[in-house]
Amino acid sequence: MKVLVVNCGSSSLKYQLLNMEDESVIAKGICERIGIDGSFIKHTTKDNKTIKLMVDFPNHQVALEKMIELLTTGETKCIDSVDEIGAVGHRVVHGGEKFSSSAIITKEVEEAIRECIGLAPLHNPANLTGIDAARAILPNVPMVGVFDTAFHQTLPKKAYMYAIPKEYYEKYGVRKYGFHGTSHKYVAQRVADMLGKPIEETKIIVCHLGNGASVCAIDGGISVETSMGFTPLQGLAMGTRSGDIDPAVISFIMEKEGFSVKEVENILNKKSGVLGVSGIGSDFREIEDGVVAGDENCRYTMDVFQHRLVFYIGGYAAIMNGVDAIAFAGGLGENNAMMRAELAEMLSWMGVKIDLEKNKCRGIERDLSAPDAKVRVMLVPTNEELMIARDAVALVK
Amino acid sequence: MKVLVVNCGSSSLKYQLLNMEDESVIAKGICERIGIDGSFIKHTTKDNKTIKLMVDFPNHQVALEKMIELLTTGETKCIDSVDEIGAVGHRVVHGGEKFSSSAIITKEVEEAIRECIGLAPLHNPANLTGIDAARAILPNVPMVGVFDTAFHQTLPKKAYMYAIPKEYYEKYGVRKYGFHGTSHKYVAQRVADMLGKPIEETKIIVCHLGNGASVCAIDGGISVETSMGFTPLQGLAMGTRSGDIDPAVISFIMEKEGFSVKEVENILNKKSGVLGVSGIGSDFREIEDGVVAGDENCRYTMDVFQHRLVFYIGGYAAIMNGVDAIAFAGGLGENNAMMRAELAEMLSWMGVKIDLEKNKCRGIERDLSAPDAKVRVMLVPTNEELMIARDAVALVK
Repeated sequence: MKVLVVNCGSSSLKYQLLNMEDESVIAKGICERIGIDGSFIKHTTKDNKTIKLMVDFPNHQVALEKMIELLTTGETKCIDSVDEIGAVGHRVVHGGEKFSSSAIITKEVEEAIRECIGLAPLHNPANLTGIDAARAILPNVPMVGVFDTAFHQTLPKKAYMYAIPKEYYEKYGVRKYGFHGTSHKYVAQRVADMLGKPIEETKIIVCHLGNGASVCAIDGGISVETSMGFTPLQGLAMGTRSGDIDPAVISFIMEKEGFSVKEVENILNKKSGVLGVSGIGSDFREIEDGVVAGDENCRYTMDVFQHRLVFYIGGYAAIMNGVDAIAFAGGLGENNAMMRAELAEMLSWMGVKIDLEKNKCRGIERDLSAPDAKVRVMLVPTNEELMIARDAVALVK
Repeated sequence: MKVLVVNCGSSSLKYQLLNMEDESVIAKGICERIGIDGSFIKHTTKDNKTIKLMVDFPNHQVALEKMIELLTTGETKCIDSVDEIGAVGHRVVHGGEKFSSSAIITKEVEEAIRECIGLAPLHNPANLTGIDAARAILPNVPMVGVFDTAFHQTLPKKAYMYAIPKEYYEKYGVRKYGFHGTSHKYVAQRVADMLGKPIEETKIIVCHLGNGASVCAIDGGISVETSMGFTPLQGLAMGTRSGDIDPAVISFIMEKEGFSVKEVENILNKKSGVLGVSGIGSDFREIEDGVVAGDENCRYTMDVFQHRLVFYIGGYAAIMNGVDAIAFAGGLGENNAMMRAELAEMLSWMGVKIDLEKNKCRGIERDLSAPDAKVRVMLVPTNEELMIARDAVALVK
């Protein structure tokens, strides 16, 4: 079966067409600036040729139509017709407490996604737009929703409830949801395979470190704690997000600066994290380059990030009463060998030990551990699209 | 030398008179409801007799005068005159970045405490009131300020800086300060003594668990991380404080409930924590009783509290790259043997192992560890008053 995976943002649409016989990628790409001047599509074929076309995309449906045109015609043609597409898998950010696994998109499921808009006011509407557009173009193809929050629905109540009056949970669903679930689940399964153990017998900490970053404690294949919370703002310091902070800082800054709460929240989401600490940018690659070049400010920024990450890793080992493996995924986790080496050094007390030669790599799946390591360290490039496509196949079959 | 230790709240005044020859307590007590109808003094003598007198206290100075009267006259008399008092030690909540140790209270020091009012608008003014009142009554006695924040001034920058734009630190001092410093320092020193090691060679985690609760990582005698932050709101779930929460929850609740930011902050400070989770009260003793009686809601509340505490203990062990001993102090830490036993069980992976017989105790200093424990667990009743008196003696001499 061929599966089309779609990930819609408010003005973007990422896609991947996979052949699920061998789980290979047939084509992939992204439409950007949808509904904005200067929209374009960047499309990459199986043999890794990328083309960029400036096309006017007034809405997501037109963007999807252009994508289908590229898949089925001309030099980029890779399928004869859309009839070859057996399923569409949609990434949906927020499933609230309604979805603990992926689901065939029915009227009821769509309604349930709509009911979660209050929890993800920026993301879920965009995901619904993508669903509508795909249905208009591929009316006969079954569609599946795969939720970023679903994997964390196994969190025990003691972990997902905030220590605030419970009425806010009961009335409005205020609790920890966690995100990056599809990635955490994929990486944990790969780690269990690499450990050569049934996942039920493993304790794994996954560090998904991209521009957004979260850590997840996975005990026996089950997510038992994760660092993002009610929104993706909680937890680690990220590209532009503050992560954990004293909640009392919000009113203090509001008062001092004459800001509204939304203005402060915007600062915590968009101007904080690596950007706020470094003052120079949110890109970890730039920070890494700076560290290598001996820049003190970059070194300090990296230290802030690592300090919080080490804290979470230790905390999650404690929550599971032990850990077998720590996995790094996401752009930063997969590419920054220096950071991985430094983290391993800081965690030596718990039996973490990496082989510095094995660690000299980027973006490949590899066990980085030294032979005598008690806690293994794994590098696992994440693959959310493949997970979405797998769930789509499983549900459609 | 005899030292009077004073701890002023906005409507209360706690005091202790210590004989520093043998560090014994000569008398202690508390004045409550100062400036409010129904004010009274509760005074305890050396032979542990407690009297309670209803006295009209229009202000702190009148309360202090009454205390001096009890110390020097009648049945409660324990000193001939105030001339025997060699120093007054004042607990001061917030020393900002101005105080990394205790200080003789001069005009300049008083001014510096005043400059920290913006950081502790409820506490520092009360502490200054106490200083004024003591000076009026004991004009010739040297006074010393001992700061709750001072011990944590050794935190490295990567730990005390939030991942927000640095201008808020530079302009307003927004950073992690930490509190309970006097207690953490005292307990760490006791633990080092019990370990029979110079404190410089120890890695200690102190859990000060009272109605307010914080954890501190102390590496070589130096505070390197602590769970309270810019204010005492951050960190563990406490009696009525939420501790850590997704900062985005604040604006969400504001919007849903039509609250101001101050109203939400008040909920996070006064109606959350154990009170908010249990819905029945903020007193850990009540929760403990409920757990023993098989009450599910109390069990759940205890689980929420312990989950976060285990997380912090693991996180701080990671930050120090190891830990020699974990110490429990404060009302809950000193009295709740069940909780200590459960926590030890949850931390068995890191070599924590307690002797359940030794653990059957309350409020006494004791090493609770099993002989083969890799990480020791200590019970250390805290003694902030003694620390304040010691600092007073050291500075006055």
